[in-house]
Amino acid sequence: MTEQGEVIENPEIIEVNIDLKLSPCKNKIKLLSNGLISNGDDHATTALLILNQHIDIGQLFIKIWHNSSLRVCADGAANRLYDFFEDDEEERLKYKPDYIIGDLDSIKDDVFKYYQSLGVVIIKQTTQYSTDFTKCVNLISIHYNSPSFKQFLQDHKLESNHGIELERGIHEFYNSMMNEIKSVTTIPSINLVVINGIGGRFDQTIHSITQLYNLKQKDPYFQMSFITNTDIIILISKNGTILEFDPNFRKQCIGNCGLLPIGEPTIIIETIGLKWDVKNWDTSISTGKVSSNNRFVGGNKCYFHVEDDLVLNIEIFLDKVIEYI
Amino acid sequence: MTEQGEVIENPEIIEVNIDLKLSPCKNKIKLLSNGLISNGDDHATTALLILNQHIDIGQLFIKIWHNSSLRVCADGAANRLYDFFEDDEEERLKYKPDYIIGDLDSIKDDVFKYYQSLGVVIIKQTTQYSTDFTKCVNLISIHYNSPSFKQFLQDHKLESNHGIELERGIHEFYNSMMNEIKSVTTIPSINLVVINGIGGRFDQTIHSITQLYNLKQKDPYFQMSFITNTDIIILISKNGTILEFDPNFRKQCIGNCGLLPIGEPTIIIETIGLKWDVKNWDTSISTGKVSSNNRFVGGNKCYFHVEDDLVLNIEIFLDKVIEYI
Repeated sequence: MTEQGEVIENPEIIEVNIDLKLSPCKNKIKLLSNGLISNGDDHATTALLILNQHIDIGQLFIKIWHNSSLRVCADGAANRLYDFFEDDEEERLKYKPDYIIGDLDSIKDDVFKYYQSLGVVIIKQTTQYSTDFTKCVNLISIHYNSPSFKQFLQDHKLESNHGIELERGIHEFYNSMMNEIKSVTTIPSINLVVINGIGGRFDQTIHSITQLYNLKQKDPYFQMSFITNTDIIILISKNGTILEFDPNFRKQCIGNCGLLPIGEPTIIIETIGLKWDVKNWDTSISTGKVSSNNRFVGGNKCYFHVEDDLVLNIEIFLDKVIEYI
Repeated sequence: MTEQGEVIENPEIIEVNIDLKLSPCKNKIKLLSNGLISNGDDHATTALLILNQHIDIGQLFIKIWHNSSLRVCADGAANRLYDFFEDDEEERLKYKPDYIIGDLDSIKDDVFKYYQSLGVVIIKQTTQYSTDFTKCVNLISIHYNSPSFKQFLQDHKLESNHGIELERGIHEFYNSMMNEIKSVTTIPSINLVVINGIGGRFDQTIHSITQLYNLKQKDPYFQMSFITNTDIIILISKNGTILEFDPNFRKQCIGNCGLLPIGEPTIIIETIGLKWDVKNWDTSISTGKVSSNNRFVGGNKCYFHVEDDLVLNIEIFLDKVIEYI
């Protein structure tokens, strides 16, 4: 071990064995062979959150849709969903989101009317003290965990805004749910797949990245991932993380990866299963010392031990993923 | 001043007056009415660096090209330049880069031969200890500042690789130039416009961001900016920065902005001229406290005083910028 930390260049394929006495492992993540991320809990549900950018992941979008038990559009994302099907009215009809939520300044009138006529629950929330992203995530939380919210929707379905207070009604539902729950650890896991969060206006991309950190702090029962047409992006938590994957999926569908200390400079205590594994390695964007352009060489898993949470991107070959699943 | 710092909501347009006794101002940046960034030095040259992604800024690319006195392609970026002109052979001929440099594993054979036949200086550099980005930036430095490099090219023009040592010859030229120079402050300013660095694979985007910080440390005579089809992205240095712009350009071509502490958490000591100005404001990606979705309301300038360098993105409306310039 040197002061600069150690870099070990590995062969193209290695077996990863983790000695749990030496290497803590509090977190387990599965990269499923459909390209989605799971926290490894087989009972976890999957929710899809669509943000307001062009949907550019082709048929992977359809696969993710069918893999999800809940689909939520953030405001103008409803336009993007509508437009995804171009002139194919029949197909469009099959893809009805569960909720559209936001301040509703971006959704187009005809799109609003279209989904309203299909019975989609459209909720206006005007507060400017939270973003559409937070509104969506709070809504997903209460959808799964607040029986009184479901009853409320049932009881008020004919009322304007479904009876929900216009400014921050959803946040109030969320807050009272959280007050009733003894510990967030009792909340069942939710795999949250977010599309259209990365790659547009740069401050929006970075805002999306802040949500990875935020959600981990506030609502750790979410296992959140962004899917783009080039990457899967997740948070690697401290205290040791094993990332498991199907060896064939890795071989055919995955390219490079990067360990990105966007939240703050930190130390990568140990990685096992990367082409360039590191040990006790200071990493920081401002010094430029960042493990990018790396890749998985662990046959069916990789291991990460970091001092502070950091962001991992996993390059995907979109066409190959669509073919594979 | 509260512990949390202060946020001041401003009207849509304000006059910005900076009291230099209270607010230090070591840095001046101009957002030119052609959408480019200058360090305010009228004698500065402008260099264009093209990275290996699809060129998606339309006619703004042509404008930037003509505004530059040097054009460099990083390896496979030569393919992107070639493809930009589709079937228009006549146009393609007019846009001949000065250099193509890299390990040359990405440039296509026919593109290599095409530009070679036009007399473009194509330099192979195989070292894997620096990225194509660093190879390009070192080359741009020596192009402008090393008379012996120009003479060397002249003397060895018929030799393979222009007589340049294949592994790290350009870095050696750069290092010996830097050794001869007494202080980097004597090197004339270069406005470096980089395209195709942001928005592709996510670790590459973040690698590009590290270059903003890196270059500021090592080669501060560069005023570097990324231009994408949605943003201009620059580094805001500590010790006070004034950003000047043409009021009409702001009104017609600029949207939102974000102050993004990607390098490390820091304190925004003061901003003047934003819709939501802040004072003594802790900012950090991992806590989610980031000034995104902000905008310029200073008539012709904004002022930033930050404890550590951070990233500023300025949204541009590409069609409007092309129309404006």
